[in-house]
Amino acid sequence: MNLSFDSPTPAVSDPQWLSNLAEIAVRIGLGLAPEQELIVTAPVEGLPLIRQITKQAYLSEASLVTTVFTDEQTILTRLRYAPDESFDQAPKWLFGAMADAFRGGAARLALSGDDPTLLVGQDTGKIARANRARAEAMRPAAELFANLSTNWTIVPCATTGWARAVFPGEAPGQALTKLWDAIFSITRADRPDSIAAWQAHIAAQRERARILDGKHYSKLRFRGPDTDLAVGLADGHVWAGGSATTTAGLNCLPNIPNEEIFTAPHRDRVNGFVTSTRPLVVHGTTISDIAMRFSEGKVVEAKARGGAQVLQRLLDTDDGARRLGEVGLLFYNTLLDENAASHVALGQAYSKTIRQGDRMSHQDLTAAGANRSLVHVDLMVGSAEVDVDGMTAAGDYEPVMRSGEWVF
Amino acid sequence: MNLSFDSPTPAVSDPQWLSNLAEIAVRIGLGLAPEQELIVTAPVEGLPLIRQITKQAYLSEASLVTTVFTDEQTILTRLRYAPDESFDQAPKWLFGAMADAFRGGAARLALSGDDPTLLVGQDTGKIARANRARAEAMRPAAELFANLSTNWTIVPCATTGWARAVFPGEAPGQALTKLWDAIFSITRADRPDSIAAWQAHIAAQRERARILDGKHYSKLRFRGPDTDLAVGLADGHVWAGGSATTTAGLNCLPNIPNEEIFTAPHRDRVNGFVTSTRPLVVHGTTISDIAMRFSEGKVVEAKARGGAQVLQRLLDTDDGARRLGEVGLLFYNTLLDENAASHVALGQAYSKTIRQGDRMSHQDLTAAGANRSLVHVDLMVGSAEVDVDGMTAAGDYEPVMRSGEWVF
Repeated sequence: MNLSFDSPTPAVSDPQWLSNLAEIAVRIGLGLAPEQELIVTAPVEGLPLIRQITKQAYLSEASLVTTVFTDEQTILTRLRYAPDESFDQAPKWLFGAMADAFRGGAARLALSGDDPTLLVGQDTGKIARANRARAEAMRPAAELFANLSTNWTIVPCATTGWARAVFPGEAPGQALTKLWDAIFSITRADRPDSIAAWQAHIAAQRERARILDGKHYSKLRFRGPDTDLAVGLADGHVWAGGSATTTAGLNCLPNIPNEEIFTAPHRDRVNGFVTSTRPLVVHGTTISDIAMRFSEGKVVEAKARGGAQVLQRLLDTDDGARRLGEVGLLFYNTLLDENAASHVALGQAYSKTIRQGDRMSHQDLTAAGANRSLVHVDLMVGSAEVDVDGMTAAGDYEPVMRSGEWVF
Repeated sequence: MNLSFDSPTPAVSDPQWLSNLAEIAVRIGLGLAPEQELIVTAPVEGLPLIRQITKQAYLSEASLVTTVFTDEQTILTRLRYAPDESFDQAPKWLFGAMADAFRGGAARLALSGDDPTLLVGQDTGKIARANRARAEAMRPAAELFANLSTNWTIVPCATTGWARAVFPGEAPGQALTKLWDAIFSITRADRPDSIAAWQAHIAAQRERARILDGKHYSKLRFRGPDTDLAVGLADGHVWAGGSATTTAGLNCLPNIPNEEIFTAPHRDRVNGFVTSTRPLVVHGTTISDIAMRFSEGKVVEAKARGGAQVLQRLLDTDDGARRLGEVGLLFYNTLLDENAASHVALGQAYSKTIRQGDRMSHQDLTAAGANRSLVHVDLMVGSAEVDVDGMTAAGDYEPVMRSGEWVF
């Protein structure tokens, strides 16, 4: 392995775009406050972006920036060589300390760039145990993010493995550059004034959420090839989109890019069948052609062509893993698999998608229909062939999306 | 920046040596126990070695391996862009959590590969404040290491910056390969059976420590060019070398390579003058040509050609930073600057170099002459021109080292 860490030649078309993406992440994604601490998690390959993010965070007067790097290769090493008891372990000391720091006011930025093919052919039982142990160790931090106790965002970062999966025909260097270009495009980092472009986009999203709130739909209906799913919405559901506001009053944009408008389904009111329009990647395993049937909120039948075992284990995580916690609508985007289409999420609901949800007990949230689970996994159900309708107070359906585009 | 993370070509002459070094680190350096957790700290450039270490640790039945990577470039970014108040901050959440994990039984492996020229020309005041905040945050963990509450080791790792400093005339790739070769040589990783070579070496070191304990020297005297230093030894001092034993009974070898035999000076009984035989690198600043005068244990005069300000700030850290906490003897080795020569250390003493020291209170350790400080910084004083004598119970000096070589 030849690591040239201070080569001046980036694998990106324009170094300014990398700098723009870092600025978007810090100013738009996090809305970092002066004197706020920042904790970043990133794949080691994210180093060039991390260096730019560190610079932008200090320019925004961060008190301290700490990056916790991870190396996907060590996941494979563990699966190959670790003793069996290892797979019920997770670095609780690390995740617990991060949760403490977030509770103390630190912001959280995560770079995501998993290789979707990493774990093909590996032991699904060990993977599931390791993921469960990890999810449990991360739960205190995950709940702080779900409740917007601090400002956070997730930003895509090109990696060799992800690029290979997305552009299998290209040479590795070319694939990486192409993936970076796609990321710069969907994150508006290739625009001359990318911060202004984001501000305009956020205003437009806020307006769309306001319109949807005024509709008071009781349910949404997704119709398309092998899909006819009625998703009842939670009592007092609120449409969220654009920026989110933390309990301390900071505005952040969880997920860059952030094109969706989303709300909470009712955990007991989902019926029908749905087919995924994109493969689902769960911790390195790709699950393709998922078909699920829901009855009274719960997945009662689930099939998949690839990764069926991983899907079953995911659904078996806990009761909430078989129910929906989020429904998100966005225009259909073919540029990247992620953030590409309207989706429903199995698992944990966001309390901010329930009116007054941040001040409600777990019991009251559940009573309103908000789901609770260790997991939160987005399942893409939107495409250019899928229509979305909303049921009005009068009990009639009206069009919300047609052929993957917003009607209003 | 072009990071090729999965290129199959290492910058090392023989990939087997990298694997050997990882095995030495885990089996000899740490003496990792089955089902023990391992926490590694490493520069990001240490990734190829980290992957091998992770594999070796799992082969030794580690329950979990977690690496905390650091990137030296972000130190420069912070110095250039962070607000002033940043320099009194350190990631206490991270260091505190690591200390908790070590207290809970995790082993600690650190890869060291700092660029000694990194901070040339940077603000020494900010550097000193940041180092002090960092040392304070790391103190709970540092005390666990000093007291051998868990097994730990430090292993060298070639980095571009360090290689450039050691081989300034070479092309970056060549310098890196040369530094790796030097590291493989001094760590015995280039031997056909490197584990057996280490076991023989450890036995020889143990025998030498036994001989020195039998001598009961009251003081050591270093004589050479611009050096005549009498180092009184602490009451009940014990010579340590070869492997160390943790409070839980595990054998480890702090520092790979590990050629020295060391003990505790008496904090009040050091007199004379000494000139460093190697530059001292403190957190990225190189301090050269250090000349110091001691009186009754304390540095009363200190000069340096380069980095004099950093030296003064180091000495001003606390009272113990002006006194000696360790004296280490080893044969003179020109291969690398580190672990290259006999040395004295300013700062914290190791309790294991005092008889029963692990069971003594801080007050009793101080009464025996063991020094206490936030810092522990080795100062090389040995060379081929420096002789070392020991004062026997009869009050006579007898030769211990001549021209950098052991007499016995």
